[in-house]
Amino acid sequence: MSLVVVGSIAFDSIETPHGKVDDALGGSASFFSYAASFFTTPRLVGVVGEDFPEANRKLLESRRIDTSGLVTQPGKTFRWKGRYHEDMNTRDTLEVHLNVFGTFNPVLPEAFRDSTHVFLANGSPVLQAKVLEQVRKPKLVMADTMDLWIETQRDELLKLLPRLHGLLLNDSEARLLTDQDNMIKAGQAVRKLGPKFVIIKKGEHGAMLFSDDGVFVIPAYPTEEVLDPTGAGDSFAGGIMGYLDSDDSPPPGRLRRAMAYGTVLASLAVEGFGLDRLKQTRREEIDERLEWYRTMLAF
Amino acid sequence: MSLVVVGSIAFDSIETPHGKVDDALGGSASFFSYAASFFTTPRLVGVVGEDFPEANRKLLESRRIDTSGLVTQPGKTFRWKGRYHEDMNTRDTLEVHLNVFGTFNPVLPEAFRDSTHVFLANGSPVLQAKVLEQVRKPKLVMADTMDLWIETQRDELLKLLPRLHGLLLNDSEARLLTDQDNMIKAGQAVRKLGPKFVIIKKGEHGAMLFSDDGVFVIPAYPTEEVLDPTGAGDSFAGGIMGYLDSDDSPPPGRLRRAMAYGTVLASLAVEGFGLDRLKQTRREEIDERLEWYRTMLAF
Repeated sequence: MSLVVVGSIAFDSIETPHGKVDDALGGSASFFSYAASFFTTPRLVGVVGEDFPEANRKLLESRRIDTSGLVTQPGKTFRWKGRYHEDMNTRDTLEVHLNVFGTFNPVLPEAFRDSTHVFLANGSPVLQAKVLEQVRKPKLVMADTMDLWIETQRDELLKLLPRLHGLLLNDSEARLLTDQDNMIKAGQAVRKLGPKFVIIKKGEHGAMLFSDDGVFVIPAYPTEEVLDPTGAGDSFAGGIMGYLDSDDSPPPGRLRRAMAYGTVLASLAVEGFGLDRLKQTRREEIDERLEWYRTMLAF
Repeated sequence: MSLVVVGSIAFDSIETPHGKVDDALGGSASFFSYAASFFTTPRLVGVVGEDFPEANRKLLESRRIDTSGLVTQPGKTFRWKGRYHEDMNTRDTLEVHLNVFGTFNPVLPEAFRDSTHVFLANGSPVLQAKVLEQVRKPKLVMADTMDLWIETQRDELLKLLPRLHGLLLNDSEARLLTDQDNMIKAGQAVRKLGPKFVIIKKGEHGAMLFSDDGVFVIPAYPTEEVLDPTGAGDSFAGGIMGYLDSDDSPPPGRLRRAMAYGTVLASLAVEGFGLDRLKQTRREEIDERLEWYRTMLAF
């Protein structure tokens, strides 16, 4: 089993009601691969500028993340600056500098092309399709998307969907894609567009899974200390795909366990700025949190 | 064990994107007692006008609800008219005629004063305290409240809270009462005001329980066909209190099972207008739905 992720590497400057941080290592591929690294040895494909410190690459490698697909290009690394509102659920983007990520044309190293598990982090469906074509025989492909692509590249997205096993999107995006207000109907409608399974993220309200086994709804892990929600969705995805890559048992139950692990990883990610909290955790803590979560949901 | 509920009996005229109904039997005490009747024989205290059809009383009695506390007064029954928006989560109140409910001064029949379980449906905290004084030795008292009382009778509410075992309120009300945006912190802050346990309702996103055993979060039952959300909260409460009245086992787990039953009753209530769907269900269906829900939450 082998998992490859293609996504962004960024420097995030974040302000929340609980503090602020400048130029923290972030981006979908960072959070995803870090979260997945507790289950497997992820392969990372991304691009950074000449300003990317060697220490960051070392940090990823210390988690046994294969960075041979992380290319350095002339120019600067993607930068994002944002401020979260008091409720921690909404945010304003203050600055976006795509820099080298703006012309990113992902090329998978030859050694990555036999990957069995593929995560196409949020990106244009055209680029996501190009990545997919480079993987020889994927067993499980999951993609993330966002409102921007649903609005501006709907046709390209609709062409990609039947080629996916799973699609990950949030509730407002599911509503936008299907024009359904009821999330159960929305999830089922997304499945009709092609993906075998669909995961709808509802932030602090948890997530829903739609698959051949029906609907599965789980609450978020009850987290009191939300310091920084950035990266929660990608850590969730990393927990899901990392776990799936590590567990070859037949369904049913595998996807639900993966969702539970994803929930735990997301709950850890938001307890610190950037990767801070994930850097402090261990597989033992993750499993302890999973057991507590399992107990909480039993009655 | 014996459960008494004091609340409103109303005629609801409701319009949702899925249909409409005129003068349907509703009100907190109707939904609560009907939902609770699948577990116990609830005692109902309320007031109606001379226009209240005998058939409605017979309907409640057919569920072995004791209506000897349901008094008829000169005038008309409480009437409410509302329209739900496309999202089914928000609504406009078009008309409210309190009628006989406006001067309701609840008096418990002598035979009700030994009740062990008491539900004080949404009402002024002054009236709720007056009801409580009439119960000799309550074992478990739960109350519902709303933004109106938090805003206009905060002191009276704060005086009532330490006398309750449980308080039921929704997320925006918890925010209003505690000034906390994070629902975990809000729930814990409400507990500090007196109630032994606190249940925060989050509508389609489920509910949270705060007790000595910590935090317990459950999703709503995934319901595709929401026809009319009216009465969901009171059916939830009826399922909880009805179950608690019927199960004398020691904690932990009892409150969580009760929350799960409440969730199932609420999911049934919203699948029809007024009491329509609850009228069609049986304890067997409720238990089947509970088992499916339990399976959904296991991983």
